[in-house]
This record gives sequence, structure tokens and C-alpha cells, in this order.
Amino acid sequence: MASFEDADTEETLTCFHVTVYHPRQDHNQVFERLRFCKREKLSSTEVVTFGRNPKVCHYIFQDNQVSRILFSLQPFRDINSSILSFEIKNLSKKTSLLVGNVELGYLNKTEFPGRCIMRFGDYQVLMEKEDGESLEYFETRFMLSPRSLLEERHLGSPVPENGGSSSSLLPTEMDENEY
Amino acid sequence: MASFEDADTEETLTCFHVTVYHPRQDHNQVFERLRFCKREKLSSTEVVTFGRNPKVCHYIFQDNQVSRILFSLQPFRDINSSILSFEIKNLSKKTSLLVGNVELGYLNKTEFPGRCIMRFGDYQVLMEKEDGESLEYFETRFMLSPRSLLEERHLGSPVPENGGSSSSLLPTEMDENEY
Repeated sequence: MASFEDADTEETLTCFHVTVYHPRQDHNQVFERLRFCKREKLSSTEVVTFGRNPKVCHYIFQDNQVSRILFSLQPFRDINSSILSFEIKNLSKKTSLLVGNVELGYLNKTEFPGRCIMRFGDYQVLMEKEDGESLEYFETRFMLSPRSLLEERHLGSPVPENGGSSSSLLPTEMDENEY
Repeated sequence: MASFEDADTEETLTCFHVTVYHPRQDHNQVFERLRFCKREKLSSTEVVTFGRNPKVCHYIFQDNQVSRILFSLQPFRDINSSILSFEIKNLSKKTSLLVGNVELGYLNKTEFPGRCIMRFGDYQVLMEKEDGESLEYFETRFMLSPRSLLEERHLGSPVPENGGSSSSLLPTEMDENEY
């Protein structure tokens, strides 16, 4: 569960780093069911779902405002590519997802650009992909940000770095007040 | 299970017609676990998997030559579109899928073009999408072809029509001998 390599093949694993923030996270326990700072190894044939319902979703936001199944993350491979890419699909009829500057309605999907901030309701989720060699497995790692990911950028500070991300794609500039 | 409409909303459902053929289907029972000529209603948030393993897959090919999980079919919606589109993803490391004239390796995916023949091993699968109004649900309907779907086309006969398909996309011309 905390390995950086696939034990069978010794290939490095692509890691999906997820940094979450909610303005009332200290009081409302919305992230209580996420295991922070642990790497979790997943099969690339899986579709990983995020949402409120622990019976259906892999990663849980404990919050009545969040849809039962909110969105999915799934790996794929471009034809002739040797690295994993990821796709995000909105599975909620009532909630729009802002992935970078792309707004996803119900069943809309977008290819994850390598690094971006996703927003829904008051939630801010920074996602960063660190490429690895294995195609069969990948891993996720959750971090909790003590402060807004948007404010940091407004103050000119960098967003938290989890190190080693091979992508140079920066989140699109967004004005908090627009949300 | 056999409705043409979503009972709650009276919207028509997009139907995914699947016509299968295997040269030894009369003897080897590979399609024994498919329920032919029945419409099955599925949620659009589902990822429908095809393969050998009944514990994991929704639709089963009973054949040791077929991968445990072979491929997935999943609905999505293009931004600003009011109809369901579908994507096919190869989940098998050992089997290539030919979707029309696109060859999919492990984790490769392609948007389903509305009507095409998929081939893997000796299997021929004609897929046809009939558009409906509902975004929340769709349905599948399986048919068994008594003869090769490729031969029929070579003899100039039309491939079996399941009626009402709104797509005019024809399968790409393929030479049997190339397979």
C-alpha cells in the first residue's frame, strides 16, 4: 500500500497526487474518510469514483452537499503511448465540476492535463500526475492543504509541491470571486 | 428490463444493439450466458464490462480464449450535446481489439462511431447505437447472427438491421484475410 514500485516487476508507478481543501475542513470533518499521506496501489482497469456514498465510491467526501457519486477518474493509454493518461468524468446531475477552466456537466469528461485545480461547491482539489513506468498499476496519494489553494496563488506563493511531477502544465488562472 | 422508455420520465432510451457471431457458436456455447432479444436497462454512470469472468463482467463470453476482463463500454456526453455517446476501452493485455479499422491495445480507447464491427480472435460483434432522449439510462439488446457478419458484407447482403438506428455510419471496409 505504501510502495513506489510494482513489487512484481519493479516498475515505478504513475502517482496521482491529490491535495484537498475545504474552508470549513477543521470543523466539518468532510475529509475524515480519506487516508492522507499514504500511497494506495490501484489496477489500471479500475474506474475510481469519488463521492458521498461509501458503498459505491472509492474515495469519500463526508458531506450531504456532495453527490452520492460525484466523479470518476480512470486511466487510459493513448495509442502508441507508453505512459498512462487519465480522464475525469462528472457523474453528478446536480453539481458542475470545474477542471482547470473546463466546466463539466453531467456525463461530460475531460482528459486530465497533468496538473490542475478542480473545484466543486466550496471544495478545491489540486491534482498532479507523476509519471511512472507501469501500465498495469498506478497509485494515489492524498494530502490536506491547511489553506486555500486559490489564495496561495493570489499571494504569489506556489501551490504545494509533491515533488517529481513530470508535467509543467500550470492550473489556469481563476478568480475566486467568479466562483 | 424490456422497456423502450424510462418509466419515470417517459423518455426514450438510447439502445446499444449488439449482434454477435463466432464460427463455432453452435457447438462451443460461448454465448450461452448472453440473454438474446431482451432489452436491459442500465444506468449511464455504469461502466459495462465484457469478458470471461462472471464475477467482474456484466456480459460474459464463456470461452477460455477470452480474457477475464476484455473490454469496457461506457456512456458519456460531449459538452453541450443532448445525446449519449459511447467509448470502448480495451482492458486486456493479451488481446487486440479491432473496432472498425482502429486497433486497440491494452488501455487504448476509442469513441464508438455509431455503427461498426468489432473483432477479436474469431469473434465478430456488430454494434449499432439507436439514439434516445434519456441521459440517465440507456439499454442494451443482444442478437445472435446465424452467419458471419463479414461474409454477408462480402456477398453484398446488408448486415442484420435492428431497426431505427439513427446513425448512418457504416463499418469500414475490411478484408477478412487480413485478420
